Amino acid sequence: MTLINTQIHLVSRPQGEPRADNFARVEAPVAALEAGQVLVRHQFLSLDPYMRGRMNDAKSYAEPHPLNTPMIGGTVGTVEQSRHPAFQVGDPVVGMGGWQRYSVVDAQKPGVLRKVDSRLPLAAYLGAVGMPGVTAWYGLTQIMQPQQGQTVTVSAASGAVGGALGQLAKVRGCRVVGIAGGPEKCSYVRDELGFDDCIDYKACPDLKSLHLALKVACPQGIDAHFENVGGQILDAVMLRANAFSRIAVCGMIAGYNGNPLPMANPSLILVNRMRMEGFIVSEHMQLWPQALKELGGLVAQGRLKYRESIAQGLESAPEAFIGLLKGRNFGKQLVLVN
Amino acid sequence: MTLINTQIHLVSRPQGEPRADNFARVEAPVAALEAGQVLVRHQFLSLDPYMRGRMNDAKSYAEPHPLNTPMIGGTVGTVEQSRHPAFQVGDPVVGMGGWQRYSVVDAQKPGVLRKVDSRLPLAAYLGAVGMPGVTAWYGLTQIMQPQQGQTVTVSAASGAVGGALGQLAKVRGCRVVGIAGGPEKCSYVRDELGFDDCIDYKACPDLKSLHLALKVACPQGIDAHFENVGGQILDAVMLRANAFSRIAVCGMIAGYNGNPLPMANPSLILVNRMRMEGFIVSEHMQLWPQALKELGGLVAQGRLKYRESIAQGLESAPEAFIGLLKGRNFGKQLVLVN
Repeated sequence: MTLINTQIHLVSRPQGEPRADNFARVEAPVAALEAGQVLVRHQFLSLDPYMRGRMNDAKSYAEPHPLNTPMIGGTVGTVEQSRHPAFQVGDPVVGMGGWQRYSVVDAQKPGVLRKVDSRLPLAAYLGAVGMPGVTAWYGLTQIMQPQQGQTVTVSAASGAVGGALGQLAKVRGCRVVGIAGGPEKCSYVRDELGFDDCIDYKACPDLKSLHLALKVACPQGIDAHFENVGGQILDAVMLRANAFSRIAVCGMIAGYNGNPLPMANPSLILVNRMRMEGFIVSEHMQLWPQALKELGGLVAQGRLKYRESIAQGLESAPEAFIGLLKGRNFGKQLVLVN
Repeated sequence: MTLINTQIHLVSRPQGEPRADNFARVEAPVAALEAGQVLVRHQFLSLDPYMRGRMNDAKSYAEPHPLNTPMIGGTVGTVEQSRHPAFQVGDPVVGMGGWQRYSVVDAQKPGVLRKVDSRLPLAAYLGAVGMPGVTAWYGLTQIMQPQQGQTVTVSAASGAVGGALGQLAKVRGCRVVGIAGGPEKCSYVRDELGFDDCIDYKACPDLKSLHLALKVACPQGIDAHFENVGGQILDAVMLRANAFSRIAVCGMIAGYNGNPLPMANPSLILVNRMRMEGFIVSEHMQLWPQALKELGGLVAQGRLKYRESIAQGLESAPEAFIGLLKGRNFGKQLVLVN
């Protein structure tokens, strides 16, 4: 019996915000497995901001995603068929299966498919114990390197990366201040994730008010910052940064017209002797086992909390992704592939 | 007999460019030495861009320079009187004597006065074998860390710091491209200092033309950059920066109105996974001996060249400093204190 796959293809490149008509649902038969291949049926698809960059036809750290193919994306699911001795039918696995119900994986390539421990919820491997969690872990431990008692800030603090970042910093004895949009997200960051404070940037209409809010929340200044957003938030953090502070740069939005947002005062890099470093976590695979060990342990102990926003059905992926870019999700955005 | 000291005081804070009337010449008697003190007669005073920042009454990495006192500055000279056993009359010494003919130094404080090897020209200890040379050495070895064969760029390449930076990078087998203002400085950088190429930024009126010139001069992109200037030069370098490139930030000019110059596209820090780090060389005194050893050796071997621009007489210091900020000097700006 031929299995029919459902896929969501990128069919045109968004100009500015993506629209539903940049995507199309496609049905296609699943090819028979070759030796070494594994067929995975996806349970959850992860939606992440990096995907927006791949939709452009511009030079960046990764190639543009080709049109008329399923969008890339992290997935968890179970092995449905296997022609690779290390994978058995029913094994829970995490990989980059993309926006589709099934994926055929060349499982002999190192790292493309990983069996996971079924004692944690499978979706956690797309969030706190997956790429977002490792992203936070890498930025914190490899770039920000805060000492106990130092002040750590993070933007997009209620998101999957920001939430993990703050909790990992709390485990290390730091004062942790989040920046998030709206009172509901800020309450969650403070009360559920246990940050020391959280600033609602939507209540700070300009650089001056955001700087003042940071001054109140960070009386000792800022020693290390994790940047998911850029623009005015980064400008305000730099005004409050201490000597020898470190900024891990994980995300930078562009202005509404697609032009880059400038950094208002780069001379603060010198005045504060700051270190600022951009990174892409997938380029540091050698550190993932160490990161996943800590992250999995903290989730199992209930010390690393997270929230999920689950869109129902693969067909809802484009709309959920558009909402993610507008900050409509609350916690890690997943799609339940039913 | 009471010695009369001649000093140049800062008497008012410049608004924008310093003017001659921000300074005043003052004559004052030299006090008798107390135990542990040394009287130094200065031969050369160093003029450096950092002094401009100290003239402001604004928060920075250092306190504002107090009004109605001699401006700070590096000096070389000889011991004229000594009440410290480690210093004998006639010893050549380097210190921070300031804009004056004589300084009284509490020589028991570590690091404030250093005897130097009289086999090198005394003025070298204010340039290639002094603070400018160590600044270049620190940025190159501690932040930029270029591999052999990588491409290194430096702005203000004909200056004391930039010239040393490029030559230290050549010693390490890098391709070195300078950026300087005007054909005369560019010829010097290429032909006398031995850089592989030098771009005349005055011949590049906009970001696009500067980026194009960097593309031609750096066909393999830029792996490490030393920034003395900021603004459009930094923007152009970032457009040409390779993945995992490093930028040492040593100087950042402000716009003409005193407002900070923005960085056009900070998202390149992420796209190129760049590391950008500001530093102040005086905060890393523990590395000076190692740096001075290499720098002194290279000068003695004729492998580290430099040029000096010598203003005659202490009274000429204000005008020479104003010229320095406008790029009128060619090589290390000194004042011969006669």
